[in-house]
Amino acid sequence: MNTFIIGTGLIGGSFAKDLKRLRSDVKIFGIDTNDRHLEEARALKIIDQKSSYDELHQAHMVIVSVPVDVMVEELPKILDAVNDDAVVFDGGSTKSLICKTLIDHPKRRNFLACHPIAGTEFSGPSAAIEGLFVDKTNIICEVEKTAFKLQERALELFQQMGMRIRYMNPEAHDKHIAYVSHLSHISSFMLGKTVIEKEKNERDIFDMAGSGFESTVRLAKSSPAMWAPIFEQNRDNVVETLREYIHNLQEFKQLLEKGDYEGIFKEMDETNKIKEILKGIPLNKK
Amino acid sequence: MNTFIIGTGLIGGSFAKDLKRLRSDVKIFGIDTNDRHLEEARALKIIDQKSSYDELHQAHMVIVSVPVDVMVEELPKILDAVNDDAVVFDGGSTKSLICKTLIDHPKRRNFLACHPIAGTEFSGPSAAIEGLFVDKTNIICEVEKTAFKLQERALELFQQMGMRIRYMNPEAHDKHIAYVSHLSHISSFMLGKTVIEKEKNERDIFDMAGSGFESTVRLAKSSPAMWAPIFEQNRDNVVETLREYIHNLQEFKQLLEKGDYEGIFKEMDETNKIKEILKGIPLNKK
Repeated sequence: MNTFIIGTGLIGGSFAKDLKRLRSDVKIFGIDTNDRHLEEARALKIIDQKSSYDELHQAHMVIVSVPVDVMVEELPKILDAVNDDAVVFDGGSTKSLICKTLIDHPKRRNFLACHPIAGTEFSGPSAAIEGLFVDKTNIICEVEKTAFKLQERALELFQQMGMRIRYMNPEAHDKHIAYVSHLSHISSFMLGKTVIEKEKNERDIFDMAGSGFESTVRLAKSSPAMWAPIFEQNRDNVVETLREYIHNLQEFKQLLEKGDYEGIFKEMDETNKIKEILKGIPLNKK
Repeated sequence: MNTFIIGTGLIGGSFAKDLKRLRSDVKIFGIDTNDRHLEEARALKIIDQKSSYDELHQAHMVIVSVPVDVMVEELPKILDAVNDDAVVFDGGSTKSLICKTLIDHPKRRNFLACHPIAGTEFSGPSAAIEGLFVDKTNIICEVEKTAFKLQERALELFQQMGMRIRYMNPEAHDKHIAYVSHLSHISSFMLGKTVIEKEKNERDIFDMAGSGFESTVRLAKSSPAMWAPIFEQNRDNVVETLREYIHNLQEFKQLLEKGDYEGIFKEMDETNKIKEILKGIPLNKK
């Protein structure tokens, strides 16, 4: 099975590693505008050979994991280049604009819109992890628009990789993912900013930071090139989550200013039910 | 060495576990207003026997880790009850009010004001972890107010436990810890609240939550009984961190609303330097 990985970073690279482990018949072609990444992916044996769009007609499967602004530019060209029997799927963190962009493409049936909810704060081929997708959710949008035989080919792989599949429309995906992913990244970036600004002249202070700080600010290590386009494409939903988050922070601040410590206790006590919710979230194996 | 653990939870229990491992001569007495915790601590062999303030005169070392509002109530009574040769230290997340409360106590020299920056989001004796304090920072305030011989006794233990020691005045401690710990907890609680409120009728949505969400919202599992008094005692500093955090979030939201994606990229890019800072933070061994 000729598989093309377009974007040989954390997500593309992790797909490639699982493919090599699970499929004896796989040959992996890598395409990346970053030649250093491509060389690194080959050195790490993530890809078998470097390739280009000229060879895409040989593909049985194409996995596209590039920043979402590049996605909407490149997916139409990728679909133009593939054979009728190829399945192309993406790993983008937004789904509405990507689906809208491809709605009238003559090869829309070759495309499966995916969002595997997996990753780390790191990027590039060296960040790829074997087994990254075990027990992780893969959200598939507009599944009915993909040719049945091609759905099957991708789903068989997802199943072998240990993913849970959820079907959703692109608008619902973008609305909810703003709450459970995009907002977390902004809260983390702004927390990092607040502390860096305050403590810039007091480097020793970071000796005071513990694992709790590390946990809340970890996502502020994420790649701006990946995240700025996500916030752009999902702007309206993200602005709405931010409005609500800021409102809740202001209310908490007002309770503090008023000295209403019972109110503060209650806020925290009610939010403790997050325990039950978090139980269901699979973490990366260390 | 007769050691009294007052508050047999995560921190007190973790001290007890290390003491048992490191000191063959130790006998551990447990005191806790929660009798269920005390029984549990004995069943888990964290303490050797249940005790009360009546027996405190036998103590060589007393470790107090209770919520900080209880701390200011109990520490004077504990100091009243101990012998002149006992060292009493605390593990509270605030230091100013505790130090102020004890400033004129006739046994002030028996007290060492500590804040070991270690813990998890769990609580109670079953949350105690052997080796929790390895490579963690222990902040000691007003060290000059403690009898030299008693400082030595505590510091010898901290060294054996693998802690790094930092000396700081109580006001500086409270100001900086608001940024690198207290603010993280509020950001996490309010993030949890925002998502729970929005998604209360859509339980399936949490299938969409990944390890990034888990990381930023993990601290929202923390105990309100422990954290409400911390926010109360450190109110002014915490309000200030919240003001700055909310301001940064509002600015980010405005950049989004204006469609200034270069500005958004820049904000994230500049905050990426948190990578260097986080490298120095020791995490809990899994």
